[in-house]
Amino acid sequence: MSVIIKGVGSFIPENIITNQDFFKHEFYSEEGEPLPQGNETIIRKFKDITGIESRRYSNDTMLNSEMGTIAARKAVEEAKIDVEEIDAIIFAHNFGNIPKDTVQTDVLPCLATRVKHDLGIKNPNCAAFDIIFGCPGWVQGVILARQYILSGDAKNVLVIGSEALSRVVDPFDRDSMIYSDGAGASIISHSTEENKGILSVASQTFANEEAYYLFYGPSYKKGHTEGTRYIKMHGRKIYEFALNNVPLAMKACLDKAGIEISNLKKVFIHQANEKMDEAIIQRFYKLYDIKELPENIMPMSIHELGNSSVATVPTLLDLVLKGAIANHEINSGDVIMLASVGAGMSINAICYRV
Amino acid sequence: MSVIIKGVGSFIPENIITNQDFFKHEFYSEEGEPLPQGNETIIRKFKDITGIESRRYSNDTMLNSEMGTIAARKAVEEAKIDVEEIDAIIFAHNFGNIPKDTVQTDVLPCLATRVKHDLGIKNPNCAAFDIIFGCPGWVQGVILARQYILSGDAKNVLVIGSEALSRVVDPFDRDSMIYSDGAGASIISHSTEENKGILSVASQTFANEEAYYLFYGPSYKKGHTEGTRYIKMHGRKIYEFALNNVPLAMKACLDKAGIEISNLKKVFIHQANEKMDEAIIQRFYKLYDIKELPENIMPMSIHELGNSSVATVPTLLDLVLKGAIANHEINSGDVIMLASVGAGMSINAICYRV
Repeated sequence: MSVIIKGVGSFIPENIITNQDFFKHEFYSEEGEPLPQGNETIIRKFKDITGIESRRYSNDTMLNSEMGTIAARKAVEEAKIDVEEIDAIIFAHNFGNIPKDTVQTDVLPCLATRVKHDLGIKNPNCAAFDIIFGCPGWVQGVILARQYILSGDAKNVLVIGSEALSRVVDPFDRDSMIYSDGAGASIISHSTEENKGILSVASQTFANEEAYYLFYGPSYKKGHTEGTRYIKMHGRKIYEFALNNVPLAMKACLDKAGIEISNLKKVFIHQANEKMDEAIIQRFYKLYDIKELPENIMPMSIHELGNSSVATVPTLLDLVLKGAIANHEINSGDVIMLASVGAGMSINAICYRV
Repeated sequence: MSVIIKGVGSFIPENIITNQDFFKHEFYSEEGEPLPQGNETIIRKFKDITGIESRRYSNDTMLNSEMGTIAARKAVEEAKIDVEEIDAIIFAHNFGNIPKDTVQTDVLPCLATRVKHDLGIKNPNCAAFDIIFGCPGWVQGVILARQYILSGDAKNVLVIGSEALSRVVDPFDRDSMIYSDGAGASIISHSTEENKGILSVASQTFANEEAYYLFYGPSYKKGHTEGTRYIKMHGRKIYEFALNNVPLAMKACLDKAGIEISNLKKVFIHQANEKMDEAIIQRFYKLYDIKELPENIMPMSIHELGNSSVATVPTLLDLVLKGAIANHEINSGDVIMLASVGAGMSINAICYRV
């Protein structure tokens, strides 16, 4: 038997927020001082490093769980299963539902329950729960779905990754330009075919000093919304951490699967930062003494979609599977890798034969 | 092989809040009207139904994750393993860390990462993530840990259930007297012994109209903390729901394990409400045409500890294992059941041979 991805779907919010839209922002340093460079320079440098030209924000009335439901419907449709055949729902997020212009996270009930409610699933034996694992939450959900299926507890698991980061960003922090909203979903299923689907997995947490590289902190503009906290990061430390550790986890995963690096067709990596992702893949190949990257090895969506946390990997996979990214396609039998890194600091990877 | 509970630990906060402490409260109805009965009557009736005489609140400076760490240390100590032998950490909660007198949930990083940090675990291959599944979160964590172990991904999983409900209660709602703070933890491990440990599991979510029986809503006192939401419930509906569904899930679990009802030694049920728990166990035995309950079948801690959500089942198990509840003990070979019900609406059960 094997564990396969039977269907994938995604939801990309319609509201396009361009870099231009940040020209009117006041940006402050971590110490609360206005940044001296001027917004044109700040935004040009931001674009050069991250590759981000625009990102998406959900409508003011839309909740995170509602984005998840839209992506879930598409995944179910593509998998050609009835919703009553779903044995479990795993919803990965980090901030739950936060209605626009409020600060409280609402996960009562959990978001997976809300999706189950919206899909009208009646089967009570389909347990619905949420997981929190930083940006790698959706990949982790797939890893848990595989365990669910291997243990015999399930045949089909709906795994959703959805996040509305626009609700937790500090408008006075230039790092906020990274973040985006979106949702991806997949049906992970039991299959009787051998040597297909998930070949190996890796899952890690670095919780020593790394634990607080991403954290909830006050606005960079002193006195703004006293007491309210926003997503904050030590960008340089994260960059170095990712370069040192993600390639090793990817290699461990590939080697566990017994796959030659030359047979790896595509790497779907968390869309965090273009320069960082490029450096990670360079180092990954360097671990196999390969200096020149294979052509079209790493599809990217960050230029237009930004970093939507748990949603980037399933959304990117969906786009490539639907032929929506130029020069990138996957064929039956191809070996691909999914990899992610984020708050925790958590890292994970999945080696997969299509 | 089998999957066993190798060690259990709990943390019971020191601050005892008695029913007397609520005499000074103003209680309002769901419609925002002052309750006419007077507090003496309200509190007497509350005690008659729920059995709760006191509950525990954590210190003002303590965070949910810190309670979890204390319980985790005790579980690790009892399991006699080194913390570096833990392959995964699953932290079940619903409200994350909410510092006293604030309303924002902080799960950046997730609470499992914080526990890993506090325990000083260096092994990066110990992944740490949180789950949200209402009050049955800890039982669900054990169910996931079993899958982790059966799939070969782990040998030892630390599963924590910790909640500080005192941070999300509406002081003007009499239901708030139910809620308590606390933490329980366990080491779930691979064992080479056969026919021991977890014999069967059941896990359910009822997400039709039941999805919103527990929800986040405004204070019952109109105008109080405008915009802030608190834990709210449709108590009567939950009571009926639990009576109709929990006994069936328990029976499905016991039957799956192939255990005769006469061989069941003890039932550890979520401490939600004494009358409800008694009615559930009555109905459970009635499903087997047994009208008279076996003696000392259901240990209770609700009188003194209230309802600490995810923490009640592991705390109760810990108290019984340590001989802290009169007339209740467990011996090697005994078959016991763990069962829970809560927001989602979620229900789960585990049949276990000690």
